[in-house]
Parts: sequence; structure tokens; C-alpha cells
Amino acid sequence: MNDPDQAYRATTEFFAELVGHGVRDVVVSPGSRSTPLTVTADATPDLRTHVMIDERSAGFFALGLARAARRPVVLVCTSGTAAANYLPAVVEAHYSRVPLIVCTADRPPELRDKGAGQTIDQVGLYGTHVRWAVDLPVASDMSAAAARRWAARAIAEGSGPHPGPVHCNWPLREPLAPGEWPPAELVTGEPTITIDRPPPVLDHRSAAELAELAGAERGLIVVGPGDLSAVADAVAALSRHTGWPVLAEATSSIRTGPHLDGAPFLAHWDLLLRGDAWADAHQPEVVVRLGGSPTTKSLRLWLERCRPPMVLVDEAARFDDPGDVVTRVVAATTASALDALGRGPGVARSVWTDAWTSADAAVQARVDELVDGGPLLEVGIVRAVDAALSADATLVVSNSMPVRDVDGYLPLSPRPLRVVANRGASGIDGVTSTALGIAAAGSSTVLLTGDVALVHDIGGLLAGLRGGLDLTVVVPDNGGGGIFELLPVAAHQGIDVETLFVTPSRIDWDGLDGLAGLRVHQVDTAPDLRAAVVAAVQAPGIDVIRVPVDRAASVAQHGQLAALGADLAVP
Amino acid sequence: MNDPDQAYRATTEFFAELVGHGVRDVVVSPGSRSTPLTVTADATPDLRTHVMIDERSAGFFALGLARAARRPVVLVCTSGTAAANYLPAVVEAHYSRVPLIVCTADRPPELRDKGAGQTIDQVGLYGTHVRWAVDLPVASDMSAAAARRWAARAIAEGSGPHPGPVHCNWPLREPLAPGEWPPAELVTGEPTITIDRPPPVLDHRSAAELAELAGAERGLIVVGPGDLSAVADAVAALSRHTGWPVLAEATSSIRTGPHLDGAPFLAHWDLLLRGDAWADAHQPEVVVRLGGSPTTKSLRLWLERCRPPMVLVDEAARFDDPGDVVTRVVAATTASALDALGRGPGVARSVWTDAWTSADAAVQARVDELVDGGPLLEVGIVRAVDAALSADATLVVSNSMPVRDVDGYLPLSPRPLRVVANRGASGIDGVTSTALGIAAAGSSTVLLTGDVALVHDIGGLLAGLRGGLDLTVVVPDNGGGGIFELLPVAAHQGIDVETLFVTPSRIDWDGLDGLAGLRVHQVDTAPDLRAAVVAAVQAPGIDVIRVPVDRAASVAQHGQLAALGADLAVP
Repeated sequence: MNDPDQAYRATTEFFAELVGHGVRDVVVSPGSRSTPLTVTADATPDLRTHVMIDERSAGFFALGLARAARRPVVLVCTSGTAAANYLPAVVEAHYSRVPLIVCTADRPPELRDKGAGQTIDQVGLYGTHVRWAVDLPVASDMSAAAARRWAARAIAEGSGPHPGPVHCNWPLREPLAPGEWPPAELVTGEPTITIDRPPPVLDHRSAAELAELAGAERGLIVVGPGDLSAVADAVAALSRHTGWPVLAEATSSIRTGPHLDGAPFLAHWDLLLRGDAWADAHQPEVVVRLGGSPTTKSLRLWLERCRPPMVLVDEAARFDDPGDVVTRVVAATTASALDALGRGPGVARSVWTDAWTSADAAVQARVDELVDGGPLLEVGIVRAVDAALSADATLVVSNSMPVRDVDGYLPLSPRPLRVVANRGASGIDGVTSTALGIAAAGSSTVLLTGDVALVHDIGGLLAGLRGGLDLTVVVPDNGGGGIFELLPVAAHQGIDVETLFVTPSRIDWDGLDGLAGLRVHQVDTAPDLRAAVVAAVQAPGIDVIRVPVDRAASVAQHGQLAALGADLAVP
Repeated sequence: MNDPDQAYRATTEFFAELVGHGVRDVVVSPGSRSTPLTVTADATPDLRTHVMIDERSAGFFALGLARAARRPVVLVCTSGTAAANYLPAVVEAHYSRVPLIVCTADRPPELRDKGAGQTIDQVGLYGTHVRWAVDLPVASDMSAAAARRWAARAIAEGSGPHPGPVHCNWPLREPLAPGEWPPAELVTGEPTITIDRPPPVLDHRSAAELAELAGAERGLIVVGPGDLSAVADAVAALSRHTGWPVLAEATSSIRTGPHLDGAPFLAHWDLLLRGDAWADAHQPEVVVRLGGSPTTKSLRLWLERCRPPMVLVDEAARFDDPGDVVTRVVAATTASALDALGRGPGVARSVWTDAWTSADAAVQARVDELVDGGPLLEVGIVRAVDAALSADATLVVSNSMPVRDVDGYLPLSPRPLRVVANRGASGIDGVTSTALGIAAAGSSTVLLTGDVALVHDIGGLLAGLRGGLDLTVVVPDNGGGGIFELLPVAAHQGIDVETLFVTPSRIDWDGLDGLAGLRVHQVDTAPDLRAAVVAAVQAPGIDVIRVPVDRAASVAQHGQLAALGADLAVP
């Protein structure tokens, strides 16, 4: 007879060790095979339990929570397709480098691949999309020391220079209910295994070479997606020291904040770079790239054209460089690379700096004129939402249109703002669940999403209502995937673009209002939107603010905006 | 420059060849990278396009459609996490042997693993859960003949003795929109490659050995899940010829129908086998097992105890036998195995036959008394739904409680009824989407599901409303996962079973009524339920019929029912 208490001891020690390494949250989905994991996780001191029925939502919820709290989050589910539902969030976590500790219950080895119920091949289920995967020994055969060691290993594999998801597959034998519960002895939450991993810091020679590069006048700092707020001050300091403009995507979370003071950060560089004449007249001598691979197409195409020496700072040395333009990879911490660059001679502001900042200001004036003078469309929505947000807020942005609009038009501001998008794999799935995870971490959270993305994760929205979470959702409603109207396929008369690509979401907004306590609002002007966001952020529960958007007007305005940089004077 | 027309030619030929092999449906989710696949699939004559935003729902919808139509269904999605969302349905299709042709768009090789947008490692994404996976050459480099060949290969790999999902990963290079569209030339839907695969038929010696086995008096025919309606007559004929009782799970779809006439099929064998004394006094000399691995626990435990010689008929020879009780595997078609067994001497009805049928009738009377005399609970719901269904209906059943109640209590009847459950991996995910796929195949479809399963796939329900599909949903609402009340963990006072396992679904039924055209009804008695199902089946659109169930009463009744077989007289 299998000893259930031994399994409970092992999982108890496992979770206690995780807590010792800073884990604070576990997201549980209901199931029978996972009973020992669920019961002991819930009983672990200093580990908060979140329950979500749908494992796909649970995965994205954990992803959001881990992003917001900046520490690993544990997932627990039962065997079978439950585990398969985690894959989308695991893939996103892999590419966006978010630590998740995925614990899937499984049948013990003697019941696998022989037709036993709810049993699938879970070993290696997430393929190459985890840092590490282990098919653990059967829990009732695992010693306390072994359980501690597996937990510490999971922490070590999922953190460090290249954090990400890890998969612990837990074979569990019946009986699954505990014998004695709660146990007589408590286990300690202190870690039994200490992990020392010093960050990689540049050596003297490499640092000197970087410092020499930083002597160039015509330099640029390009910042892709991923949370860089921890180095915001250092980026700004380097920018001030060198006079190099900063072209940061909004999802770096460093395009706003007090660090901007006196540093040449730009807001509308995407539009500048769409003007070929201006862009080609302003080719840099050197580019320093931080964060993930930039998603802005104009930037990518321009860098592929002018191919300056380019330094990619990435502690994990992943060579994320689709255009093959990087010429140096610095596998050191971003802080240490910025420090080395800052030891260069410095030229402070120059003609180069002023050319960029004055062009940015000129484009800004044109954007203001165009957006403020027209109907409320996506760009005006970004600006109104931005104006409503306070410094403690997190703005979560769906992929596809919303993130492009935020990257393109989020104004510079001294108010810090966390901007989060699932830019690892850039799917439109799980966006609402991700935002709810961020909200569950305690942040005041506003989600800007499309109607198609809202439909894709409607189960996540309802789970948030069940869970009593607090979220404000802003939906520019263009009745489907408006982004497809901007693609070449839309020009073909013989293709049913509306049905096959735009996929009208046909949301019954009136029906949603009041459902499970949801509040749906509709606004049509920028001041109303701003006021609605302010009110919704202060109210508990979930508010959805719908902003009807005329798709044809939106396509036209995006076209006008794209052309704004094209006729800038070239000095 | 890449030639988009060549890519369109390749995908056009691919889909045309699939149609030539009998494919009739494609389920498309919107995306940009998949444009050539989407556009050409939609333009293919005799291929019906279904559009679903959420790829997870799309996957289960395709699964249901393929089950109902008994032919492969194609899935098309864009690159990235879109493809990851198919995994749950692919896993279920793998284990339940349903052919799906999963076409995922991907970046071309030169843009992989280097930080390009919406690019994940899709090669081998579904691991061991597909029959075959291929990373195709870039579509614009693929000849028409090659495209035809890949399509025929996909058909061949996904069908035959062990049907299941296949994965075609499609690298597509920009530009993605077609040059000339529609093309000047039409392609033929006739297959260019013929596949001859004769079914495995037993040789003379094996057939003779089976015929000899069939001479036993104390034989049983055990039928697990999976659609066996094609051999229903043959099973009944063998049963009549040998006098062997048939213990069929409802999800075999052969527990009702005109073939039952004069054949000793049993309805309440689960209850009989829960009575140890009766069961042990009725040990068989030989068992013939058809279909998937039986899920009924009492049967499994009993067979492990008495270990009779057991013949497993499985053309794919998968040895699905968690109890290690099978002694002979017949890797021939079920029809040929039944034919061989039917050539035995035959004993017709015997004392053995009568012992089983009279015990089944005795238990039936007790069940009638208990269920008809009490409040409307799960078993009464199964009976009322059954009574409302006509011969052309399909009853889709969620895993967890509903499928157990249907397996345990679906009455014998001369009316044929297709009963479908996702018994491959037995997840509660995607149940509604599966039912919608079955409905889309043209069957009159009734879904019996739990409130937790309904919440898990609420996005599927809303997609069905958007798609104008016709479905009747019956929900015994016990306010959460009532099944956990039946598990040992529920006995522990120190564990918050309600929050961690039962997970109250807190469905806002009033709010759902009218949402996007949904109709929600509530009934409390068996006659009302029966009338409501009849009315809902006749009405277009989606009806949800909620039957409030008292969880404590349900637990008590399940306990009483389980005990019914325990005190049967042992002759």
C-alpha cells in the first residue's frame, strides 16, 4: 500500500522550499490527481492560493502575476488535457522570460501509455518552451531532502540570466487523500539550499571597449519590449552623458517617468523613421540595443538598411536579431553594460541630439493637430487613457492593434507607468487573464484591448468577476480585427476579408452589462473616456469601457499618421 | 522577391487533394501569417469554411465535427501561441483516434529562433500526440505535385487502423497577400494520388482459434468508449449466438438501437459489479473486449480480480489495458473479429445469460423505485433527457460526473442514440465546443454538461451563438464540481474542499439569459425537463436548460444507488 502521508510530506517540503526562495503565489485549478499538491500548497504559510477553473486562464493569470510581482509563480493542475491548456502561457513565458513553476499531476509510471483514464504523455509536454522539465519520482517515494532539492533546482533553472518556465511533472499514486491532516509537525519555510549566482559583470577590457564606443556623437539607444524600469535611471543618465536619443518602445516601461528630465527620449520615432529621406539623412554611427527585439517595423527596416555597428546587451546572449544587424553581443547585466558605456568621454547634447528632438517635437505637433481635431479613434484613446493614469498604475496592452498604437503614440511624461504586453510570442490570447494576474498582485490595472482579443479570453473575464478582482478594461470597438484592414490582403475584392480575417466579434454589450456584476460603459469623446477610466479605476470590480470606433475612419487616420514623418524637412 | 502566387498555387493544390480524399470541412481562425492557407481553403470547392476566433475552441469544434462526420477535418491558424491553443484538442484527438489535419502557419526558416515577432518553435509542437508531423518546405518553393503528395500523405498518416491528428507546419514568406486573385485556372478536386490500404482481416488459423473460444458458455462482451455503431448489429448477433451478455459503456453508442432485440444487453452492470458477492459468483470463462479501455471502475477492479482469458480486439494493437488483464490482442478489424467469433458453435441463451439479465432487471426495478420516487437529481436527469431524444439525435456528455451518470444509467432502448464524450483524455475542457462541432455536422445535438465544464468553455458557447449554431445544453447545476464530494478528500475537515476542489462556478444564470441570443430555462421536475428538451431541440439557436441539484441529496442518492447491487441474492 502506498503511503499518502509520504506524498504529502514531499509536496509540503517542496512548497516550503519554494517559499524560502521567495515564491509567494500559487494558482490552482481543481482536479483529483493533483490533490496532494493542491492541499499542501494551500496549507503552506506565506503562499497565497488563487483558484481558477480554466487552466489556460490560470496560466496567463500566473504569467501576469509573475510579471507584476517580479518573482516566480507556481501553477498546479491535474493530469491530462488540463496540463495541455497551460501551453499558450508557457510559450509566452518562455519568450518573455517570466519564471513560472508548472506543477502537473500525473499518473505513476505503471499506469502510463496503457489506456488509463485522464492519462496523456506529459513528459516533455511543453517541448522546447521550458528552461527545464523533470518527470519527478513518485511523490510517495520522495524524501524530504529530495523534495527540497527539486524545489531549489526548479528555482535555479527558472531564474538567473535567462528566467522562464520550468515543468515539474508529479507522478502521484492512489490513495490521493491524506491519511492524517493537518500533519502534526510543521516544516520550516527557510530555504535548506542556498543558491549563490553572482551576476555576470563586464571585465576591464570589454568595459573599456564599450566606453570607447560611447565616444561617438551620432549614437542611439534603442529599447525593445520587456520591463526595463529597474535601469530607467541608468539609461537616462547614459543618454544625457552621450547626447544619444532614446528610441524606446512603450512596453519597456521606461518611456515615461521622472528619469526623462533632461534626457533626449523620443515619443514619435516610429513616424520619423517612416520618412525615408529624413531617416536616411540621420544614420547613426553606433546603436546600443536593450531589452527584447524591437517590434516596430520602420525601425527594423531602417536598421537593416543603414547597418550601423550595433551593440546588443542581453545577459542571456540569445541573439534576438531577426535582421542580422547586431555586431556585438554583451552577455552582461544591463546595469553593468550601461555603467561601462557611461565611462566614455561624453559629448552631451549635440547637433545630432537636437536634430532628433526637434523633429520629434515637430511630428508631435502634427499628431496633436490631427488627433485632437478629429473623432475619437485609437490614437486619441491611447492619449486619453494615458492622461487618466496615475503613477502607481499598470497599463496592460493587447497585441495586434493596441500595442502598436501604444508603442507609436504613448506620450512622454514625467509620471512613471508600467506598460505590459505579452510581447514574447505576441499572441492575442490570454490578455485579459494576464491583466487579472497583474491586478491580483495589487497594482491598479487598466487593460487596453481589442474586441477580438476580449472575445478570445472571455472566460478569463468571467473568472475575474468570480474572483472579485479589480480591473478596468478599455475596448476600442471596431467590430472585429481592424488590423486586417491595414494589410494588403484587404485590397482584394475576391476575398471575403470581413468573414475570414476581420471576424466580427458581435459582442452583445447590453447583455454583458450586469453579467456577474460586470459594468459596461460606452463613451464617445476623449474627456468622457478619461473621466470614465478615472472613475473605473477607483471603483472595485471590473468595468469595461467601450469606445465605438469607425473602422474606415480609423484606417484613414492611421494612413494620415503614417505619412506625417514623410515630408519632414531634411537639413 | 518571393512569388506569393506560387504559395497560393501550392496551398490550393493541397486543399484540392484533401477534398479528393473526402475532406469537407476546414475550421479557420483569423491571422495574418496564415493568409494563403485561409484564402485558398475558403476558395476550395466542396470545402466548407467555419471561422472561430479562439483556436482552442476551434480545435474542439473540429474534433466534434470530425467525430460526427466520420472524416478528417482541417484546422488553419496563424503562427505563435495560436498553434499552442490547439494542443488540448490535439491530445484528445490523439487518444480518441479522431483524424484532424492541423495546418499551422509559421515564419520561414530564416526568421526562426532569432526574436522575430509571433514566432515560436512550432516544429514538433504537439510532441507525441500526433500520428505524424512535418515542417513543410516554404510554400512558395513547393510544386503542385509536392503539395498534392503532402496532402495525400497527411490523409494516409491520419487514417487507417489508427486514425488521429497530423500536423503540417507551413512556413510562409512575405508577401502574404496573393498577386493575382482569384487565379485564372481552377484545379481539380479529384485526387491525384490513390491510397489503397486494405483492412487487416484475420487469417484462417487465428479465426479458428477465436471461434473455438466462442464456444464457452460463460462469456461476456465488454464494450468501452468510442463509436462502435458501425458494428452494433454484429455485436448483437454474436451476443445472441453465444448467449453472452453485453456490458457496453454508453459512449460506445451501441447500448440502444433496434439491434438490441433479443440480445442480452445490460443497462446496470456497473451496479451489479459493485456487489462483490454477486460479481464473484459470476466470473466469466472468457471476455471479449471491444472499443477503448472501459472507464467503469467496478468493471476494471472485478476483471483484475478474476482475470479471465481476455481477448482485446483493436486493429491498432495499442494494448490499452491498465489492469494488465488482456491475454490476446486481435489486431484485425472489429468486424472481422466478430465474424470469426460468430463461427463458433453457439450455445444461445443459457443459465449464465439469464443470471445476468434477471439480475439487471432486478437492479433496474430498484433504480426505478429510488429515482422516480425522489427529487430530480443527476440520474433522473439522464433518464428524462434520454426520454426526450429522437433517433437522429446525438447526446454529448461532459467528462467527470455526467459521463459516469450516463454510463451508469442510460436505459436500454430500441431507439438508436449516438453518445459522444471526449473519453480519449477525459478532460472537462472544450466540451461545449465539441458539441457545437457535432451540431455543425447537421446532427440534432443535446449536451449534458456540468456547471464547471460549462464555465471552462464559456468562450465556446459564445462562439456558437455568434455562429448561429443550434444546440441544447442541459446543466445539472450543483454549484461546482460535485464529483469532489464523492472523493475521500471531502472527508477531511481541515481542508477547504469547497474552495479548492468544488470551485463554485457562480454562474449568473439570469445574466446569461438573453446574452447574444442565448435562452436560459430552469426546470425542477422530470416531466418539465423532458418537455424543455423536446422544445429546445426543435427551436433554432442555443438553449441552456438548468436543473438545480441539491449537492447533499445528490451525494446521498449516488451512495444509495451504489449500494443497490450489494445485496443481490447470490444463487
